[in-house]
Amino acid sequence: MPYQLHYWPGIPGRGEFVRLALEAAGADYVDVARGEGGVAAMQRFMTDPALARPPFACPFLVDGKRVIGQTAAILLYLGPRLQLVPASEADRLWVHQIQLTLADLVTEVHDLHHPIGSGLYYEDQKPEALRRAGDFRANRLPKFLNWCEAVLARNRGNGEREVPRMVGGRLTYADLSLFQVVDGLLYALPKAMKRVLRKTPLVAALHAGVPRQRRLAAYLASERRLPFNEQGIFRRYPELDG
Amino acid sequence: MPYQLHYWPGIPGRGEFVRLALEAAGADYVDVARGEGGVAAMQRFMTDPALARPPFACPFLVDGKRVIGQTAAILLYLGPRLQLVPASEADRLWVHQIQLTLADLVTEVHDLHHPIGSGLYYEDQKPEALRRAGDFRANRLPKFLNWCEAVLARNRGNGEREVPRMVGGRLTYADLSLFQVVDGLLYALPKAMKRVLRKTPLVAALHAGVPRQRRLAAYLASERRLPFNEQGIFRRYPELDG
Repeated sequence: MPYQLHYWPGIPGRGEFVRLALEAAGADYVDVARGEGGVAAMQRFMTDPALARPPFACPFLVDGKRVIGQTAAILLYLGPRLQLVPASEADRLWVHQIQLTLADLVTEVHDLHHPIGSGLYYEDQKPEALRRAGDFRANRLPKFLNWCEAVLARNRGNGEREVPRMVGGRLTYADLSLFQVVDGLLYALPKAMKRVLRKTPLVAALHAGVPRQRRLAAYLASERRLPFNEQGIFRRYPELDG
Repeated sequence: MPYQLHYWPGIPGRGEFVRLALEAAGADYVDVARGEGGVAAMQRFMTDPALARPPFACPFLVDGKRVIGQTAAILLYLGPRLQLVPASEADRLWVHQIQLTLADLVTEVHDLHHPIGSGLYYEDQKPEALRRAGDFRANRLPKFLNWCEAVLARNRGNGEREVPRMVGGRLTYADLSLFQVVDGLLYALPKAMKRVLRKTPLVAALHAGVPRQRRLAAYLASERRLPFNEQGIFRRYPELDG
């Protein structure tokens, strides 16, 4: 039975981290809310009072009787099944720790344009967004990317490889997620991001190299890959860049 | 060898979620930055360029050669070792999913007083904090607590027990973490929180019942339990409550 991924159909958002893992592994899956039933099918599932373990929000994954919410928990579940993690418990936990740190960064990127409330429009929190974005560009963005650079530099599995890996010598979901975060930030804050990437060459090399994997290349060129836009997490508002 | 917990010594913060698990299980641990070496010992460890897998931030746990950052990842690691999770993979992932959802709530509680930047003082982002807190009290706080209430109501392991559990019939780290979040919110936003708890009686019962566990009761009465204060995540600024 194919995996069911449930997520908003119009944005890459957090669902894309799961989609990249499924696509990179060539897994059989259905993108439920992008199908005939649309968002209604997803919401019917989530709000069913008979659901013993309801997810707080999407994305969530359905695998037979299993329903799993929280992007990082979904990837923890899929990692071994899709062969996107190393074999040892220690390495798997380290991949997960990296994912959780990237998830923190994604939350901060969301709050760039929603510093006051996720239920309000950007236009209704623009002065606050301008202030928050300044702090993010000056402090948080370099801090997160410098940490990723250190992780790549200290990964003994990399040796002399052209495309570095976050953990060990093979592709993991941590690589896919870092690719996606960098890709989103290059869309949202191109000026700030290019400046940071000049100082984090291993992160830049990972971002350039990950899409060359055969299945990912096909996916990224397909219509299944949703473009970034101003309804998602990574939004291009030029006034927040600089 | 005792576990080493590394966290800021003056606040409960995110370290307290780990501490509660260690204390509830009666585990042997050292609270490094509260010892002789202080914060300097923690920072020396974190910033050591020889550390192959550096945590992005504290808390982090050292267990022999293992160094684990991210609160939820630490609890994922400790859960089976401290017997604070059920036996099955599905149940363990559900406990983790709950932890990740509570972690999202904790981030939002932090951003109540730091909506613009974590490096700035509260006093320098007070108008933004007032706006964000209004949205949080009206929308986010009830949404998170209602979800916790549904999780408790749908847990078939509860039967007729007086103190409900989040997962199955025995204490897990999800129970400890929900206790801590409710405790912190009752400190930070007593008015708003009491209003929400009247509509989430199972959450209230869990919060009242968890501290009766023998080891936790001893811990909570000890000097090891740090009080909430205005340097931490859960801060009492009356202007943010209502």
